[in-house]
Amino acid sequence: MNDIKPAKSPLLPEPTLRRLPWYLAIVSTMRKAGIEFVSSTRIAEESNVDASQIAKDLSFLSIKGKTRIGYEVASLEKELREFLGFMESHRAIMVGSGSLGAALIHDSGLQRYGLDIVAGIDVDPSLVDSEIAGIHIYHPDDMERVITENTVTIGIIAVPANSAQDMADRLVEAGIKALWNFTPRRLRAPKDVVITNTSIYSHLAVMYNRLHQQ
Amino acid sequence: MNDIKPAKSPLLPEPTLRRLPWYLAIVSTMRKAGIEFVSSTRIAEESNVDASQIAKDLSFLSIKGKTRIGYEVASLEKELREFLGFMESHRAIMVGSGSLGAALIHDSGLQRYGLDIVAGIDVDPSLVDSEIAGIHIYHPDDMERVITENTVTIGIIAVPANSAQDMADRLVEAGIKALWNFTPRRLRAPKDVVITNTSIYSHLAVMYNRLHQQ
Repeated sequence: MNDIKPAKSPLLPEPTLRRLPWYLAIVSTMRKAGIEFVSSTRIAEESNVDASQIAKDLSFLSIKGKTRIGYEVASLEKELREFLGFMESHRAIMVGSGSLGAALIHDSGLQRYGLDIVAGIDVDPSLVDSEIAGIHIYHPDDMERVITENTVTIGIIAVPANSAQDMADRLVEAGIKALWNFTPRRLRAPKDVVITNTSIYSHLAVMYNRLHQQ
Repeated sequence: MNDIKPAKSPLLPEPTLRRLPWYLAIVSTMRKAGIEFVSSTRIAEESNVDASQIAKDLSFLSIKGKTRIGYEVASLEKELREFLGFMESHRAIMVGSGSLGAALIHDSGLQRYGLDIVAGIDVDPSLVDSEIAGIHIYHPDDMERVITENTVTIGIIAVPANSAQDMADRLVEAGIKALWNFTPRRLRAPKDVVITNTSIYSHLAVMYNRLHQQ
């Protein structure tokens, strides 16, 4: 049982992959508003991305726009959702279920975008064997077993920065294929392990600096 | 009463601003481990960033490393924290206090990094006038008043994508100086308003695509 389809998608440039969810949000809003067709010019206005860039980004999909009519909104939405992997179920474990980890477990948006958090891990005795939003929290001693039993492929790291690399090493050892790192520590892992960094606090640093210019 | 210091920091390149919090996490771990001095070579090993790049990034700070000894760990940590604005208090309002918004309100890490969420906003009648982690949730009708009364400078947007631009417009109108956008919608705002995008779901799209290559 593996939820990851083998080599379905082409290797896309990261900027394209980051923009496609913007287009998805736009066409999703349009579909709900009853709009049937959309041109790349219209998506350009809504997204502040060049129309030619949008056409290029969408060319990775199998859907084609019609001259003068554009893309069929509902089909484009469905195809984007499938293409981005949001329709599949990717099993993940939340390593560190304190403040930020618990927050992410609570975010039902992740589920809608194809991320299925099957368990949480924490050292805090008051959390171990409790449930957060219906997700069971285990002690780190049980981590490898939980990963194997649930064929988990993604490890989300939300532990204190000084434990991040240790947990990453254990996750990789246990067979995890991707690490989603929410700590400000850069992680080392073998080349075949995907590392995605979401440095919320780094974004704060950028925002503060820009604010201080005003 | 304004928590934002005027033009204190120089305008830094965004990549530098994103890396500085990594170094902070590293030296913070070292200080807790009782390490007194650190070289840029040592930070390089921990961060996977070039030692020369690290020296360049740290040259924006007033602290100087000593030949053969390196930087004093505790001073470097303190200076990074101050330089990045993490020691100040930046008042923010959470617009959209549902799943992701509530999650972010719960994350005490934001407070430690200088973000003071003073109120939440939501349309949901079951949330209005409730409290999430001690933060009062108001109806959108009260948003402008809450911003003015609390001299809020940062608007965090965690509403459904189709309301994001409307809320952004109202925030800007109410005098907000920075928008932290967690929705997949790109926002338009006047040039003097800082926009920071944290597209958690875009990161998922990148991760899934890379996973499918394996």
